[in-house]
Amino acid sequence: MIVTSMDVTTAASRIKSHIRHTPLLRVGGPDLGLSFSVTLKLEFLQHAGSFKPRGAFNRILAARERGTLPAQGVIAASGGNHGAAVAYAAHTLGLQAEIFVPEPTPAAKIARIEGFGARLTRTGANYAEAQEACRRRQTQTGALEVHAYDHEDVLAGQGTVAREFETDAPELTHVLVAAGGGGLIGGMAAWYAGRTALISVEPAACPSLYDALVAGAPVASPSGGVAADALGARQVGGLMFPLAQAHIAPAILVSDDAIRAAQRLLWDRLRVVAEPAGATALAALLSGAFVPPPGAQVGVVLCGANTDPGLVGSSP
Amino acid sequence: MIVTSMDVTTAASRIKSHIRHTPLLRVGGPDLGLSFSVTLKLEFLQHAGSFKPRGAFNRILAARERGTLPAQGVIAASGGNHGAAVAYAAHTLGLQAEIFVPEPTPAAKIARIEGFGARLTRTGANYAEAQEACRRRQTQTGALEVHAYDHEDVLAGQGTVAREFETDAPELTHVLVAAGGGGLIGGMAAWYAGRTALISVEPAACPSLYDALVAGAPVASPSGGVAADALGARQVGGLMFPLAQAHIAPAILVSDDAIRAAQRLLWDRLRVVAEPAGATALAALLSGAFVPPPGAQVGVVLCGANTDPGLVGSSP
Repeated sequence: MIVTSMDVTTAASRIKSHIRHTPLLRVGGPDLGLSFSVTLKLEFLQHAGSFKPRGAFNRILAARERGTLPAQGVIAASGGNHGAAVAYAAHTLGLQAEIFVPEPTPAAKIARIEGFGARLTRTGANYAEAQEACRRRQTQTGALEVHAYDHEDVLAGQGTVAREFETDAPELTHVLVAAGGGGLIGGMAAWYAGRTALISVEPAACPSLYDALVAGAPVASPSGGVAADALGARQVGGLMFPLAQAHIAPAILVSDDAIRAAQRLLWDRLRVVAEPAGATALAALLSGAFVPPPGAQVGVVLCGANTDPGLVGSSP
Repeated sequence: MIVTSMDVTTAASRIKSHIRHTPLLRVGGPDLGLSFSVTLKLEFLQHAGSFKPRGAFNRILAARERGTLPAQGVIAASGGNHGAAVAYAAHTLGLQAEIFVPEPTPAAKIARIEGFGARLTRTGANYAEAQEACRRRQTQTGALEVHAYDHEDVLAGQGTVAREFETDAPELTHVLVAAGGGGLIGGMAAWYAGRTALISVEPAACPSLYDALVAGAPVASPSGGVAADALGARQVGGLMFPLAQAHIAPAILVSDDAIRAAQRLLWDRLRVVAEPAGATALAALLSGAFVPPPGAQVGVVLCGANTDPGLVGSSP
């Protein structure tokens, strides 16, 4: 594998002073309408509101260590969360950042990116089109491209989510994670390496990892629905795919309605605001799309909260 | 003292299976615009959205142990959070609950109380008037009154916040807590008993503990401003006052603007939604109203989130 648990440990040391060690919350089954308890990793409390700074810092700091960080700073394409993370990391490290996002990017994410002082370009109908524009611009400026998921340093950085989760909850037998381009779940697979079952959860409206696992290779998939701004990569990364084949089972799809319901429940029962992608993994349990075996110790990563909090609903 | 650390330990055992052990988040100074880091206790993740179920469960379960829990169930007056907690506890334990709240109680709190199946009465302009109506009704029904703060079992239950906080962060030298009727900070004072400095923070618009400490006895105070629905008791409880005199210093007042600014910062930097009372303790640090001594290890309790999430603001 191109990324191993040793790379994740190296990443953890490298990014330690820049990253929040996010806490866990153990929630009883009745609170969720389930017959088993669930351990939530509150990764939405991370800097910039999602797990993405882990990979962004690891990519940038590793380049700096290698002496390959150009004076032009960094450049990235993103559905929004990765762009906010790269902008945050650049701001923290005193670097210039240029971020490309597709036109439909939510206002909350635009505001985050600009709030961290990055130069922002909105272009294209989806992540893939923004990514093309970003690539063209990168060849002009020579800035360091920080890919949203398909780079070994990014994967290793995201894998630190699993390392923390295992340190704090070694008893877990099953961990559910939302997948888009596959950076988070790929990095987590590199860490867990099969010791804990990793369950991929995707919206049925953007099933890039599900489709890839069925096809036996990354393939182009639809990219729509309520979580497309975060999970809408058309195709999973080539680097993560062997990790997924080796270590992820099963891959689950959930409806947009199930995702919205999970967002509402997170607010109603836990006073947690999650963006659609942040609630997607939990939706697999709440909707019954994934039923863990008896005796399983189940963990779920709540991976992002970059949304308008007024949208989570006002039910009691 | 009427409540001791031993009572808090007894309470912790009694309520353990009904309460969430809420997690901590360590936040670096730069994230908050401060020169020191802060350890936040995320108590808003508690059942029913505030710390209040700790005291409610301890009061009700202690009465059940003593054989003094009537068939008529429980009755309580509340600015909202305590009512939601009593309704939640009663629902969990299979008891009837009747809750009295003042007219200005926010919709989010009304919805919580009704969502847990309690019988709700809105009456009076403030907590004190709702409390009078509750007392009259109690003499008719004979239900167990669960006072919002001035009862030893309630104080001991709330004190379990401090017991958890010390277990998980024994290094803290200063802990900031919002005060209203004084149940939470009084119970925490019983636990810490001076080992850790407890700093009381109140809105200047409802300064019941500040005024009491100045006067040397509980006195009637104004009850207004953005956090009045949670911190608006006109007078602190008689039972907590000796604990406050012995163990709380200093008592700090903050403006409503500082509270709103703390709410916005909690969302912007941490993706945490807090109600005004839940952000009040942090406001003392952010506004500079309380400056810890050099080398202090500072903790803050974020105690509630029963608000409309759309109200926390939509800045980046």
